[in-house]
Amino acid sequence: MVTDYDIPAFFAEWSQLDQPAYLRFLYEFVPTIDPRKAVAGLCAEQSTAMWQRVGVVEDLRERFGAKVIRLEPVGDVAQGRWLVEIAHPHRNFGARLPNLLVAAAGEGTFYAPGVAAITLLDITFPAGYLAEFAGPQFGLHGVREQLQIHERPFFIGVVKPNLGLSPADFAALAFEAWCGGLDMAKDDEMQADTSWSTLRGRVTCVSERRQRAEQLTGERKGFIANCIDEVDRIPEQCHIAERAGATAVMISPVWTGLSALRALRRVSGVPVMAHFAGVAVLTRRPQGGIASALLTRLMRIAGADMIGFAGFGDRMQTAPDEVRANIHACLEPLGAIAPALPIPGGSDSAQTLAHVAQQVGHVDFGFIAGRGVFGHAEGPRAGARSIREVWTQLHV
Amino acid sequence: MVTDYDIPAFFAEWSQLDQPAYLRFLYEFVPTIDPRKAVAGLCAEQSTAMWQRVGVVEDLRERFGAKVIRLEPVGDVAQGRWLVEIAHPHRNFGARLPNLLVAAAGEGTFYAPGVAAITLLDITFPAGYLAEFAGPQFGLHGVREQLQIHERPFFIGVVKPNLGLSPADFAALAFEAWCGGLDMAKDDEMQADTSWSTLRGRVTCVSERRQRAEQLTGERKGFIANCIDEVDRIPEQCHIAERAGATAVMISPVWTGLSALRALRRVSGVPVMAHFAGVAVLTRRPQGGIASALLTRLMRIAGADMIGFAGFGDRMQTAPDEVRANIHACLEPLGAIAPALPIPGGSDSAQTLAHVAQQVGHVDFGFIAGRGVFGHAEGPRAGARSIREVWTQLHV
Repeated sequence: MVTDYDIPAFFAEWSQLDQPAYLRFLYEFVPTIDPRKAVAGLCAEQSTAMWQRVGVVEDLRERFGAKVIRLEPVGDVAQGRWLVEIAHPHRNFGARLPNLLVAAAGEGTFYAPGVAAITLLDITFPAGYLAEFAGPQFGLHGVREQLQIHERPFFIGVVKPNLGLSPADFAALAFEAWCGGLDMAKDDEMQADTSWSTLRGRVTCVSERRQRAEQLTGERKGFIANCIDEVDRIPEQCHIAERAGATAVMISPVWTGLSALRALRRVSGVPVMAHFAGVAVLTRRPQGGIASALLTRLMRIAGADMIGFAGFGDRMQTAPDEVRANIHACLEPLGAIAPALPIPGGSDSAQTLAHVAQQVGHVDFGFIAGRGVFGHAEGPRAGARSIREVWTQLHV
Repeated sequence: MVTDYDIPAFFAEWSQLDQPAYLRFLYEFVPTIDPRKAVAGLCAEQSTAMWQRVGVVEDLRERFGAKVIRLEPVGDVAQGRWLVEIAHPHRNFGARLPNLLVAAAGEGTFYAPGVAAITLLDITFPAGYLAEFAGPQFGLHGVREQLQIHERPFFIGVVKPNLGLSPADFAALAFEAWCGGLDMAKDDEMQADTSWSTLRGRVTCVSERRQRAEQLTGERKGFIANCIDEVDRIPEQCHIAERAGATAVMISPVWTGLSALRALRRVSGVPVMAHFAGVAVLTRRPQGGIASALLTRLMRIAGADMIGFAGFGDRMQTAPDEVRANIHACLEPLGAIAPALPIPGGSDSAQTLAHVAQQVGHVDFGFIAGRGVFGHAEGPRAGARSIREVWTQLHV
């Protein structure tokens, strides 16, 4: 729809724009036509589509149009991949996550003529827009205060077997792991509110054992309860879990929706963890999608206090730089939005702790193990202890 | 984690299972190890992970484990692509869409050892599970009754320019199109509730013009209001739109969450349309993801009365068979779940109607145009008329 004549009006100098009025969307894409024409069309498709009514002299692009502020090849032009940065006026949708994503990663983005493959790499937010989001209620520092854990990573264990145990048997496993040195036990993302292990029943059992473990060890202990459910039931599930003694709650924002996280943050009295189930569908493939670190940053903006994502293990099929970008997205300065606890995960155990700690390069992370604790040949107490012992050896 | 010794217990004969207790997940995948070992691991990862506690003689797979019921190469074995069908007991999560997706397309699916690329192609539901979902409240037939349109497609127009018009100017365009023969005008998915065009103000203006157009044409006319918003605001937005006279409401289930659709269906008094913003992120790439027709079926199960998806135009980068699979997913028998109106979309106009109608092969669809109506050189009345005229010529 965009003609050669139309193209220049879709380009602007960033320095000439009213910067607080714009978000900046960064994409990598493969054009099948002149890149300038492709990105002009991309701007049209993701904003006004048409910028004047038939028979009316007007140009709605002035206030409502998305504009290209940077266009350059990635490496050699012959490779055919380009970077484009687009300034999009947030008056088009406001401080609403679903609407933001409809703009940045909706029909306009993925069906722009002449754009064969496109990845949303990043979104840059002006301070005024960010201020509309509360971000984490507790954040990294709040979670440290809650459990009184400082100057080391959090040791987190996903109770396994994750399906099929009675609440009492499940709680018994968590108890063993806490006694061995685990800081937080958690539900697997598959372990929800079922007839054979209700959320209330399970958390009640777990909390009784958790308090006992605190008495025995003299350490604070946490339990992250899985509240993944239909979106209109999540607030109630959160209240059930809190009343039963959960110290944190968890949902998976890809399948519940990111704004379910924002809504949960409003009602939760305990830290909220975001789990990465489904993230790979959006992020993995080389041909396009959304950068995982951007999703992590959006989860933080939406209010996650702890954010799980694919970690360093071979199983996770994720480059170390991508893992570090996710860690950075949890911790980097972001207006008044508090940092969140990054939890890179995937088949870790005492054997991988030194490597993970070295890859992370600091202590502000959650180290998470499932079978590494609960599948330990001598049981979960020994599994948790093995992790704490490695940490002690690393830091004497 | 799965040893050669463990593999056989992850395989079962479908005829030997308690079939009503299982969903069937169909995947295409590329193994990097023995395919039997890869799918055994896939079953473990997406269900029990561990199936016994250390030191306890038990096998939780019996009731809670996912089981391979079919494994075969796609075409020639040398191509390296395989189909696997997995029976997964729904007692693991219940009739909850986010939990279903965590099981079928979560961490277990996308991080199973030895599975390099995987696409969720289909889910087959037993009748008892489907019965937990209400499905469309109106469905195809209810929408036909509402507008008294029978034996032809619905002609739908996305008002454009979609951003920047005042409610009065926006309503004036819709009015012209209705007078020219459009059945339903709709908000673009980018046109939400903004300071410069509030949902209430816009729908109020539109409804006044809609009633006038009904008087002038003697036909019923519809307006689909965009209610995409933070998930906890969607029910209120729906009520605002309904009270102001919208005949239908729309959200985009990928970015609001599928269960927002299910929640909206519970509170809406008018048909609900699902828009495909974001679907491409999940479905497009050759290396994996989720089949688009499955997402369409899930939207129908969640309660969408009308479902938009990428249509036949070149711009939509979608194979005709995939478009037809989406149409089929709206209309195929599905327990007691009513059929939904399929709306294949993308840059259509009077020029493409004959082709689209021929590709669809029947009249149960919505034909949707944006610029094809509102960008018509003689204005939206002529644009809408041109479509109705083509239809009349096709069917004399």
